[in-house]
Amino acid sequence: MNATDQTALLSKTDMISAAAMSPLALRHAIRAGKHRGTTTGYASGFLQGNLAILPRDHADAFLQFCMKNPKASPLIGMSEPGSPHIPALGRDLDIRTDLPGYRVFRGTTDYQTVTDLTSVWRDDLVTFVLGCSFSFEDAITRGGVPVRHIVAGRNVPMYVTNIATAPAGPFHGPLVVSMRSFTPSDAIKAILYSDRYRLAHGAPVHMGDPAGIGIKDLMKPDFGDAPVMDKGDIPVFWACGVTPQMAIRNVLPDLAITHEPGLMLVTDLPAESAEFMSVGTA
Amino acid sequence: MNATDQTALLSKTDMISAAAMSPLALRHAIRAGKHRGTTTGYASGFLQGNLAILPRDHADAFLQFCMKNPKASPLIGMSEPGSPHIPALGRDLDIRTDLPGYRVFRGTTDYQTVTDLTSVWRDDLVTFVLGCSFSFEDAITRGGVPVRHIVAGRNVPMYVTNIATAPAGPFHGPLVVSMRSFTPSDAIKAILYSDRYRLAHGAPVHMGDPAGIGIKDLMKPDFGDAPVMDKGDIPVFWACGVTPQMAIRNVLPDLAITHEPGLMLVTDLPAESAEFMSVGTA
Repeated sequence: MNATDQTALLSKTDMISAAAMSPLALRHAIRAGKHRGTTTGYASGFLQGNLAILPRDHADAFLQFCMKNPKASPLIGMSEPGSPHIPALGRDLDIRTDLPGYRVFRGTTDYQTVTDLTSVWRDDLVTFVLGCSFSFEDAITRGGVPVRHIVAGRNVPMYVTNIATAPAGPFHGPLVVSMRSFTPSDAIKAILYSDRYRLAHGAPVHMGDPAGIGIKDLMKPDFGDAPVMDKGDIPVFWACGVTPQMAIRNVLPDLAITHEPGLMLVTDLPAESAEFMSVGTA
Repeated sequence: MNATDQTALLSKTDMISAAAMSPLALRHAIRAGKHRGTTTGYASGFLQGNLAILPRDHADAFLQFCMKNPKASPLIGMSEPGSPHIPALGRDLDIRTDLPGYRVFRGTTDYQTVTDLTSVWRDDLVTFVLGCSFSFEDAITRGGVPVRHIVAGRNVPMYVTNIATAPAGPFHGPLVVSMRSFTPSDAIKAILYSDRYRLAHGAPVHMGDPAGIGIKDLMKPDFGDAPVMDKGDIPVFWACGVTPQMAIRNVLPDLAITHEPGLMLVTDLPAESAEFMSVGTA
């Protein structure tokens, strides 16, 4: 999720034209190899999602895992087995080519980074698209509340907690949280704004004392960059999309695919649809 | 607002029948002198309100004060000058007789406690009914989140802050807050539940460090009882209906009337109407 620093390299004119791109035009540019970096700041106002692709014989258990842990794994769409399309999420959408980067796991925690899944694709693969924090971060920012890591051009800090997810079949693991800190009154607003986006992690799961959820040192996150904290700030913790990725690493089927952090699937759905959207299947 | 300890004196059977009373039957019982105590726990599910009655020549400024400070002074109804009725809030409702107790201020901070305003009434009096915290406390409790002072049978602790209200005409004064403490995850829920009740103080105004809003000693509230705090609790602060009462005390017109704390106006409106109700005028 080294997204924000890559965005920072865009000129202001580039950022405006990037924001104005339609999701379909952006997916086509990615498919043609004309866009390779982050999707942050592109196709503004449209829903972006995390990707998890698993063989059919693991799909039922992973779907259960998502349903049992909806704050960490909010399902916004899934495909039929073998199909690279999810019509409910986008016109002429091809999961194999329309993200700028993928991580391919072949039964180990090592992975290969690729920009096209065509040669990897199998008839038994099921695609899951999960809501991400962009929707609520946008809403918080539009509400006039600064999101400190974005202002500082850093990646959000993420932490492995001592809270266990609800296991489903072989999928299990700790809840991973992302942290954003605010003044107390801004923290109240951030809680209210994020709650609206039930399919983008929703309201936070914890705030205040990091030790309360097993975080030993707030300044040393397990993933992402060290946090930016102002005096008097309250740390607020949201369920994070790294949670299902860790659950997948605890299973390691012979083939599993995720997106490169920050290089998301950009859908045709308005970002606001994370407020109430039901699962969109193919 | 020594309401909860009075309620605690009711037997379980009494509490069930008290809760089941209709608002009209309760107002008639009060009017007939058959009910003299708190209204807490009575006519469950119906909206209760704080009372402020002022002479007409102060009414416009006080209305402005309410509009400028809606979290502390959420207006749910007001009367025509001289009328003791507010049809929008209740059938056969008489403001002069339908509350169990009133405080009558005659140009000083001393007050007289009465149970009937008939002999005090004047043709220039305007009644304001303001939302109170009962609506959101009920919602929090129904949501499975313990409200510690209610569980302990105590009054809510209230504090004068260093935050100034927006003045209107002669009405001015500090924001007064009530405090409820929760575990961090329950605090998040309490923020979300209370936000729905925009006309019952809505979401909190502060949480965490009491010094951030000028509170020197959390264990020594300015009004109400000392707080009940569990280990790891976060204190959460809501705008409080004592705020407009302090603003009235800063003006002291020749006549001003408020309710006795805990002895509220019980309306015919469902408690949930504090979620979105517009001002109901006569």
